[in-house]
Amino acid sequence: MSHHKLAFLGFGNVGRALAELLLRKRDELGSRHGITFSVTGIATGSHGAAVDPDGLDLTAAVRAVESGGSLEQFSKAPTTDTMSFLRATGADVMFENTPVNYQTGQPAIDYIRAALNLGMHVCTANKGPVVHAYDELSNLAASQRLHFFHESTVMDGAPIFSLFRHAIPVAQLKAFRGVLNSTTNLMLTRMEGGESFDEAVRYCQQVGIAETDPSGDVDGWDAAIKVAALVTVLMDVPLKPQDVQREGIRGITPEKIAAALADGKRWKLVCSARREEDRIVARVQPELVGPDSPMFSVDGTTSIVEFETDVLGDLSIVEANPGPHTTAYGLLADFINAVS
Amino acid sequence: MSHHKLAFLGFGNVGRALAELLLRKRDELGSRHGITFSVTGIATGSHGAAVDPDGLDLTAAVRAVESGGSLEQFSKAPTTDTMSFLRATGADVMFENTPVNYQTGQPAIDYIRAALNLGMHVCTANKGPVVHAYDELSNLAASQRLHFFHESTVMDGAPIFSLFRHAIPVAQLKAFRGVLNSTTNLMLTRMEGGESFDEAVRYCQQVGIAETDPSGDVDGWDAAIKVAALVTVLMDVPLKPQDVQREGIRGITPEKIAAALADGKRWKLVCSARREEDRIVARVQPELVGPDSPMFSVDGTTSIVEFETDVLGDLSIVEANPGPHTTAYGLLADFINAVS
Repeated sequence: MSHHKLAFLGFGNVGRALAELLLRKRDELGSRHGITFSVTGIATGSHGAAVDPDGLDLTAAVRAVESGGSLEQFSKAPTTDTMSFLRATGADVMFENTPVNYQTGQPAIDYIRAALNLGMHVCTANKGPVVHAYDELSNLAASQRLHFFHESTVMDGAPIFSLFRHAIPVAQLKAFRGVLNSTTNLMLTRMEGGESFDEAVRYCQQVGIAETDPSGDVDGWDAAIKVAALVTVLMDVPLKPQDVQREGIRGITPEKIAAALADGKRWKLVCSARREEDRIVARVQPELVGPDSPMFSVDGTTSIVEFETDVLGDLSIVEANPGPHTTAYGLLADFINAVS
Repeated sequence: MSHHKLAFLGFGNVGRALAELLLRKRDELGSRHGITFSVTGIATGSHGAAVDPDGLDLTAAVRAVESGGSLEQFSKAPTTDTMSFLRATGADVMFENTPVNYQTGQPAIDYIRAALNLGMHVCTANKGPVVHAYDELSNLAASQRLHFFHESTVMDGAPIFSLFRHAIPVAQLKAFRGVLNSTTNLMLTRMEGGESFDEAVRYCQQVGIAETDPSGDVDGWDAAIKVAALVTVLMDVPLKPQDVQREGIRGITPEKIAAALADGKRWKLVCSARREEDRIVARVQPELVGPDSPMFSVDGTTSIVEFETDVLGDLSIVEANPGPHTTAYGLLADFINAVS
């Protein structure tokens, strides 16, 4: 058995879902992977932080935050900032779940760098550090024999990155295409049901999957960031979101939707990238897809990616019903793979 | 770098595709995984066998078999039978590619047991040993700190088994459904194009994917064996093909196909299994699927499986264009994972 001390940076919906998943899977982690754990630190944006080298009561911590309370009551060690928090935890694995910053990846990049320098594996669901500092962070991790894993950054819990890492070794990725932004896919599905663009946006805001300013989704930025992350990691070519040719869904009118349906087709916001000679052509744009495409049946918040490699026929992964619990599962899988 | 001696048992289309893939990926195996290899033995059904502890010329061996010649000319050591062949190779990895025996899994089971007892990892594309001796062989492998891997037995090169082994650890499989027999799927696709059942069977025989006696495919036996293999390995419940409720596609007439198409649906030979209380309900049967199902767009020889677990939303894997090269790739991936 190997014991691991875990630190949580960020304890929102995903962090708390991960805490509950860790508790639920505690026995299996022991029996199937020889892993035991204690959580030695949790830091939040608005509920304080707690550090206990002997292990915090995770259930009590979840309850405190969900009832609007503070974590400070559980702390056995004072911490002044994130760096002192990380040091005080004495953790060997850090889960980074702070809010994503699409422009710079900060301050998550600084936190991850600090954790790696303190000897911690890092598991993150945050796309920012992957598109803005992948090479630096993965090299830093490798130089310390640590892992920087980020399974949940694209398609939540669907195991895209570990697929290439373990399941299809020496496969070279030539191209991919798919539907990676579930918010716009749900909007397009709602518009097929008769809603206007504004109504579809409002619906997605009401159910909590679109922001007050929906432009990150509808203008294709989130999709472009996911394309950049996949290209950077899986094609080994650093690519920034602004290098992705990008067109959102604002131009898809109810009339266009109706015409497509009458023709037996559907509009999808398609993400794609292809290696061409010495460069990558990467795109996010609305495309018409017919029933012969695996993208055709991808409804609502379901997402799909189709990989073209040098060794397999086309391989597609489809993920339905994502949510904080699937994002949390990706982090748990990263943890197991990092320490196994 | 770690050097591995490889033995090939069976050197048909898949074995030779694996030989060519090993040669093509030799540099990457070294640079990305620190693996070097030599092939110390190849045994065939009708082209003799060759053993050379210093390593055979793989290109020459492929050429000899493809031109109808014998491998004996390359042999540096006499072998009288498969057991003496295995011993003489001194290999630490054995690729088992002998013809499948659906009823008993023999003689492949004996060969695999012998190889494991000689200290070899075993990678096989043969479904027989998985459905007839999985527990014995995987326990024997584990007791010797060896691996018994079989990625290519279901969905060829699509990484179903290593997905659960590495990419989604501690996930419990509750149910799966999919289209796993590509021959019947191609037949149904041809019938949608206007062919009769007999014409569709003949076409599949002409292109070499159906046997002279097509009953293994059309009566659902191959599909039932794949269901049994998935249940046995991924649900940890030994299941025999005859325990799968099984109905083939002989009852799907051109009239039924036409009626389905007129209704916007398609007939698919659907494989499924579900854990219910303390038992597994496993089925192979024709089902009508509509465009809301990811199975709807699965044409020709493409296959799909949809997994329902306790930790993720539904996760589907779709594999297009399988062939000997994808089966070979699954064996290569097994080799890399076995020795890494």
